Amino acid sequence: MTRFIVAAVATATAVAAASHAHADEGMWMPQQLPQIAKAMKAAGLKTDPQQLAKLTEFPMGAVISLGDCTASFVSPLGLLVTNHHCAYGSIQVNSTPERDLLKNGFLAASLADELPAAPGTRVWMTVAVSDVTAQVIDARTALLTGKARIDAIEANEKSLVAACEAEGGAPSGYRCNVASFFAGVQFQLVKQLEIRDVRLVHAPAQGVGLFGGDTDNWVWPRHTGDYSFYRAYVGADGKPADFNAANKPFVPPHHLTVASPVTSPLNAGDFVMVAGYPGRTNRLRLPSEMDFAFSVSQPARIKAMGESLDIIAEATAGRRDAEIKLADTKAGLGNYYKNLQGQQESYDFDTTGILARKTATFDALARWVNADAKRQALYGADLVRTAQLLAARQATARAEFLLQYTTPQLLASARTLYLLAQQQTLPDAQRKAGYQARDLLRHRQALEVLDLRHDEATDKRRAAHFLAQYLAGPADSLNAPLLAALGLRPGMDEAAVKARLDAVYAASQLADKAERLAWLNRDAAAFQASSDSFIAAAVALYADDERRETRDKELAGQLQAPYARTLQALIAFKASQGQVLYPDANSTLRVNFGTVTGRTPGADGSIWTPFTTLRGIAAKHTGSGDFNAPQNQLDAIKAGKASHYGPYGVKALGGSVPVNFLATLDTTGGNSGSPVLNGKSELVGLLFDGTLDAVIADWDFNPKTTRSIVLDTRYMLWQMTYVDKADRLLREMGITAK
Amino acid sequence: MTRFIVAAVATATAVAAASHAHADEGMWMPQQLPQIAKAMKAAGLKTDPQQLAKLTEFPMGAVISLGDCTASFVSPLGLLVTNHHCAYGSIQVNSTPERDLLKNGFLAASLADELPAAPGTRVWMTVAVSDVTAQVIDARTALLTGKARIDAIEANEKSLVAACEAEGGAPSGYRCNVASFFAGVQFQLVKQLEIRDVRLVHAPAQGVGLFGGDTDNWVWPRHTGDYSFYRAYVGADGKPADFNAANKPFVPPHHLTVASPVTSPLNAGDFVMVAGYPGRTNRLRLPSEMDFAFSVSQPARIKAMGESLDIIAEATAGRRDAEIKLADTKAGLGNYYKNLQGQQESYDFDTTGILARKTATFDALARWVNADAKRQALYGADLVRTAQLLAARQATARAEFLLQYTTPQLLASARTLYLLAQQQTLPDAQRKAGYQARDLLRHRQALEVLDLRHDEATDKRRAAHFLAQYLAGPADSLNAPLLAALGLRPGMDEAAVKARLDAVYAASQLADKAERLAWLNRDAAAFQASSDSFIAAAVALYADDERRETRDKELAGQLQAPYARTLQALIAFKASQGQVLYPDANSTLRVNFGTVTGRTPGADGSIWTPFTTLRGIAAKHTGSGDFNAPQNQLDAIKAGKASHYGPYGVKALGGSVPVNFLATLDTTGGNSGSPVLNGKSELVGLLFDGTLDAVIADWDFNPKTTRSIVLDTRYMLWQMTYVDKADRLLREMGITAK
Repeated sequence: MTRFIVAAVATATAVAAASHAHADEGMWMPQQLPQIAKAMKAAGLKTDPQQLAKLTEFPMGAVISLGDCTASFVSPLGLLVTNHHCAYGSIQVNSTPERDLLKNGFLAASLADELPAAPGTRVWMTVAVSDVTAQVIDARTALLTGKARIDAIEANEKSLVAACEAEGGAPSGYRCNVASFFAGVQFQLVKQLEIRDVRLVHAPAQGVGLFGGDTDNWVWPRHTGDYSFYRAYVGADGKPADFNAANKPFVPPHHLTVASPVTSPLNAGDFVMVAGYPGRTNRLRLPSEMDFAFSVSQPARIKAMGESLDIIAEATAGRRDAEIKLADTKAGLGNYYKNLQGQQESYDFDTTGILARKTATFDALARWVNADAKRQALYGADLVRTAQLLAARQATARAEFLLQYTTPQLLASARTLYLLAQQQTLPDAQRKAGYQARDLLRHRQALEVLDLRHDEATDKRRAAHFLAQYLAGPADSLNAPLLAALGLRPGMDEAAVKARLDAVYAASQLADKAERLAWLNRDAAAFQASSDSFIAAAVALYADDERRETRDKELAGQLQAPYARTLQALIAFKASQGQVLYPDANSTLRVNFGTVTGRTPGADGSIWTPFTTLRGIAAKHTGSGDFNAPQNQLDAIKAGKASHYGPYGVKALGGSVPVNFLATLDTTGGNSGSPVLNGKSELVGLLFDGTLDAVIADWDFNPKTTRSIVLDTRYMLWQMTYVDKADRLLREMGITAK
Repeated sequence: MTRFIVAAVATATAVAAASHAHADEGMWMPQQLPQIAKAMKAAGLKTDPQQLAKLTEFPMGAVISLGDCTASFVSPLGLLVTNHHCAYGSIQVNSTPERDLLKNGFLAASLADELPAAPGTRVWMTVAVSDVTAQVIDARTALLTGKARIDAIEANEKSLVAACEAEGGAPSGYRCNVASFFAGVQFQLVKQLEIRDVRLVHAPAQGVGLFGGDTDNWVWPRHTGDYSFYRAYVGADGKPADFNAANKPFVPPHHLTVASPVTSPLNAGDFVMVAGYPGRTNRLRLPSEMDFAFSVSQPARIKAMGESLDIIAEATAGRRDAEIKLADTKAGLGNYYKNLQGQQESYDFDTTGILARKTATFDALARWVNADAKRQALYGADLVRTAQLLAARQATARAEFLLQYTTPQLLASARTLYLLAQQQTLPDAQRKAGYQARDLLRHRQALEVLDLRHDEATDKRRAAHFLAQYLAGPADSLNAPLLAALGLRPGMDEAAVKARLDAVYAASQLADKAERLAWLNRDAAAFQASSDSFIAAAVALYADDERRETRDKELAGQLQAPYARTLQALIAFKASQGQVLYPDANSTLRVNFGTVTGRTPGADGSIWTPFTTLRGIAAKHTGSGDFNAPQNQLDAIKAGKASHYGPYGVKALGGSVPVNFLATLDTTGGNSGSPVLNGKSELVGLLFDGTLDAVIADWDFNPKTTRSIVLDTRYMLWQMTYVDKADRLLREMGITAK
């Protein structure tokens, strides 16, 4: 229930992290692993490190992205294992008050019983990666600045992507993306097979998969059975296809094998590595960015998120249908909220000098640059320029902060629809990124799924709350087009805003799914002629939306080169000290290694030992709320006193079954569901969380405090064997023990 | 928030615990301390152990009972310190939605601003204890059995109490009680000064005093500022008096001094002792009693309490006035609920053989008795008889279990009132214990305070819920008088019961305080003529209430001698093995000693270290719910980074201030608020909790796992000095440091 949210706080320009090859830290690109082969062997890797660098071979070929999570193939029939919290949306959309899969869990009796995952669920399997830096920043682009530079970069990227996706004829079933490393110092073209028929196979009961809930989120000791199973399906021809009952399970090129609890038992101190798709880290942000984040933007965000959570709780109380609709939103928001609070707390009460260290690094960089005329000429101006432009960007972010919270969901849909209609008048290659033909299906699915996640009463309350807050600001600071479009006035209170929203909602048909989807086929003129209130508002806001986008692109384009050169300077500076860098996380495949290790001190008043056990589930169980283990599980735990839990009990743990473990792994949001492998590349765990007092690692990695929390596969197998009787899946994974 | 509830599960006959003098275990009677003096000195006691045996001298003379909690004098002006959760009821009754002392805390600016504590709040200071075994079981009584024996014991006790309380003329201001030790093997007459003008002086904000709330209740690591201050007031003549603005602070014979953080800093491994009034333990219960408790009565109780808590939460949701009214009930119930769950969990998942060990002890006792003809003659029949009678008592308890949950609060009041009226026709000495002249004020206050704790909607829902459950039982098992009195029929569902209760409530005036109190002055005939529905129901139920009481007394009287002789046999058996016994807790003053020590293992997945610090408050703070520290406290914690927290910071704790600590102290409900003293008898802490995985210690003490949780006085002083600015009280306690 954790590393799910890929920080939306990150801006367009990705940045990077500096380190020499230090075990525990480092989200290494697989192709970098041969460089750190010696350290990995010394730490306990038993296989050839060269093998890990090969993306399409075992084991990396078995690791796939779900977009905001990671999963891995665990059978020759496309069975995928990931976290329960990663499959949460799919469990939710298949749940009703009468058939509450969220609460009771789900186990498909046969292939035919497997349920379609939430619309939009995709499996992306990386098949090729190539360096395209010279094509993205070609000679012509290198001379540009401002919006022209961003437009040129986007055009180059789009053309690379289009060519890549066209290989093998359309629809190729491939999705390509250009990823930026080191803040635009390097670009890679990533080609992925995109499987779009994904089905829910098995999820344990909420009392297992979410055991501990919000209370235990980001907490150790932990006892969460955070696993679920999907299956990838393809058409009869073996190629990706839309959902169809006749589709067949995908045969993956490679799949992982679960480590045997008998012949490969995982112990404290053992080597582990994790492969996955971490979303975003900010370890090489400039000092001013860190200062702004923790002094301005994150505190404001924490406040707004707390208010949003309160509103959801109040507005859905006692309405189980609304609760189910908002469950996923609430879980995601609550998780991110707790994460940001943890970061903020570490920063506010820091005694190690996080900002001072960062400032010292960049001061040293500046001294190093200015100490040499050639370096000064190369980088000097860019360092200054970057600082100026970041300040300008921060001013805008501050002024427009609340806007992101004020938009009714249906208005957001209307804006997307109108922008799509506008963009469809252009040749596909000239359309904005995200609004091309290749993006239409994703938009359609988002519009479809809205029904399952939209609760009008909650949405109105939320929007009214933040609009009233926004309208309380200085009148001359307010966005006039927004006020005009929704009929708002400066200083209106929440009740007045709410009354306006009632009227706007009443005058729109967009809550109706068919009506909403129909707009996908209408042209801009139809929007302009419409009297639907949200459509009309989207049309009225369009010019200002475009103006702000242009303004932001202009700034981003001015910043792109100086920022990249600042990072280049840092790379050179660190290299001069003999240090190797790994890039900051950017949702591409990364590998990290470490060991199974507790922590001293743990939380204030404790030391953490590396494993939890079944015994702790019974100890935490209260029978309600966050600690409500299923009775059949509790019975099995009790029964286990005598039977020693089959092959899954561990003598060193008093004979009990390990549930979760701590490891010195460097992970972040997006890593959820990542396979954790032992030195023989066998599956020993699923990464699912970190600890709240170390989520600041996204900005400042501290090897003393940073631990990842991993589901022990022995717990998953025990639960599937003795409680949920998932025999079909166990056989499919080659598990014979009982 | 914890050791508040004195287990209501205990029956009339108290039992006792066996042990030789083992540090950490043993709730010693002060007069036993010279027997274990050597062990105490070896453990680190610096003062004369003989001194501790003197109840009216320093330090024991400073330790007083609040009934269900302990407190101690900490100034020459009657200032008392106890736990926040012990003063919770007094904070609650002084709170309104407009002036929410529960939430914001309270600090009286001067003596005149100190607020009356909750009606019924008393300070009981022990002034004398004498052995009265020969008077309670005198020669005549020793020959009796059944109800006659109980009546004779009660008569003897009442006459001892009356004589004791008459000393010095009426109203003497003394309250006397006869306490039973070792299940009636020994009786003591305890004489206490009863101070009845008690005022609330200071309570921190709920975010301090209840920090962690239900989530952290019975949990380590812990960060609760569980302290509050009362003051004892007496009349101008220095004698106990009813509340009067002209009353003066009581000058106690002795008061404790808070240990200096500079000259007497408490460290890990240090000797500590605790003096207080533990309520009830069950360590020497017979095997059949333990089996019945954990197989039948406690599981049923846990279920009913969980349902009660759900009903309170639902029925008061969104009504802040009802929430405040039920806050104390809910907190107490929730606390007891969690305690019982913890006991049950330890028992259900026990791997150490709790019941087997108990059974082995009593089997060995039986063998020892039967191995010798004289012993066989002395005890043999009693051992058998005790087992038979306990089985009979369990059968009744099982059949009537639900009745205790079915009574509307106003019906309970009506029953009390009618019984008082009936009893008042008898000479005082012949009235039932608890219904004599000396008890009237307590009854009056309970009737007064009902207004502040009674919410009709909640009460109806609770009663209807359990009545419907009760009525679903076999028709021939139901209590006919109860059904007749409330107009109920077997098998009625909750809605039908609720409709009946609506009618009964509507036909009663008892919800009106004046009306309720007026019944205190009416005779039995007036009750019998009344058409008030609850009064009429009480009259209708009276005969059956008496019948059941008589039945229970008959059984208790049959059991009294055999049970006491069983315990005598055990004492003799243990003595033959060289072991000394301490009696089970019975709300009399006890002393226990141990050391400041963490625990390995702690919770599953952790090791506990002995101290928590301010740093952990900031880490746990979320800004809402159970972890909502006040902003001024958080600011002071942040500021403390530089200033080292005045004299309260501890280098070994990273310079932070210790908040709570763990000690190997043997405590239970009733010990809450107990002063924890260092080897020099200086106040270093307030006992306030244990850990949930060791509350089974009430039945089965395990020195490896049992720890008490103590508020460190350095945290209290830091909070009072730097956050709450309680300068007046600090000066009064002689604290000058800042």
